[in-house]
Amino acid sequence: MSAESDAAGRGPYAKGVARRRQIIESAIAEFAERGVDGTSLRTLGDAIGVSHATLRHYFASRDELLIEVYRAHEERDPADGPDARGAVDIMTASADINRAIPGLVRLYATLSADALQEDHAASRDFIRERFAAVREDLAGRIREGQASGRIAADIDPVDAAALVIAASDGLQVQWLLAPDEVDVRRSLSLLERLLPDSPV
Amino acid sequence: MSAESDAAGRGPYAKGVARRRQIIESAIAEFAERGVDGTSLRTLGDAIGVSHATLRHYFASRDELLIEVYRAHEERDPADGPDARGAVDIMTASADINRAIPGLVRLYATLSADALQEDHAASRDFIRERFAAVREDLAGRIREGQASGRIAADIDPVDAAALVIAASDGLQVQWLLAPDEVDVRRSLSLLERLLPDSPV
Repeated sequence: MSAESDAAGRGPYAKGVARRRQIIESAIAEFAERGVDGTSLRTLGDAIGVSHATLRHYFASRDELLIEVYRAHEERDPADGPDARGAVDIMTASADINRAIPGLVRLYATLSADALQEDHAASRDFIRERFAAVREDLAGRIREGQASGRIAADIDPVDAAALVIAASDGLQVQWLLAPDEVDVRRSLSLLERLLPDSPV
Repeated sequence: MSAESDAAGRGPYAKGVARRRQIIESAIAEFAERGVDGTSLRTLGDAIGVSHATLRHYFASRDELLIEVYRAHEERDPADGPDARGAVDIMTASADINRAIPGLVRLYATLSADALQEDHAASRDFIRERFAAVREDLAGRIREGQASGRIAADIDPVDAAALVIAASDGLQVQWLLAPDEVDVRRSLSLLERLLPDSPV
């Protein structure tokens, strides 16, 4: 396949890419609506009206489909990519987006739990790499904050980055279970006292 | 059944309690060793040498067994119960204990992820109640810190309690996936700057 045929959206490969994408979009809609409980490739196929054989053609496993769905969701996340914002602000923005689609908070929790189990190498690699990449990104933002004097110099940037990610992940879980008692944004904003995003 | 026969450990009920307890202990050992991946009541029975029928006699579902295992683990947690320690210190001590048994960190992650799905009412109730109880306990400790002037008065105790729990939960997940990069204790200790446990 040439880059040209891909860009032009022609040929069997481009059709396959489009169909794969369409399946991921259907899966996102399904997850957003009803979560991901016990979802096998087969039950998910039933839910989105795609045969099990077709699904198997595009995705090697349930894990692979879940990962692709989450990745597609993250790609459209405006909190993504480098910009000038601080670590807490960026995770708060990201959590805002996730909360609009509770099914994806559930999907992320499922991927994270799967990642800790022995038989889910694909989920483990995906979540491990995501954590490592986000820690690195946030640690860089924290170092910038230290360089500009906003953040205390004796805070380890990687320790603090892991803390911000953990807080954001954990708060979303608590919020899903008790939306009237847990306010993700308010709790996360406490971390700004530790890691000021803006000049104080 | 009288309290006396229970206390004396006699009679069929007491035998049943002992057997149930023994199954939970075997399950803890199994989880500590190999995690909880895809564990159905049947596969767990195979692993600990208990017939599926026996397991069904003592536990209504896989979820119920997982909850009982986690509860048994928590009951022996010396971080449990009221004492004079601060919110961050108590969650740090609790996380220390969990990290000694990685299978239980996995079990907890599984329970939390299940709790977010539609078809796991037992896990949802257990995790929701656990979060609510721990938030209340930690918020009380934070209020005490505010009363004694250690903690800033303008911090909402419940927001801060949710933050500390989230940080502890999320850090344990990151640590399991990258034990050389993530230090739960060091990251959590950053929260002491926000919520000092001891007089500063």
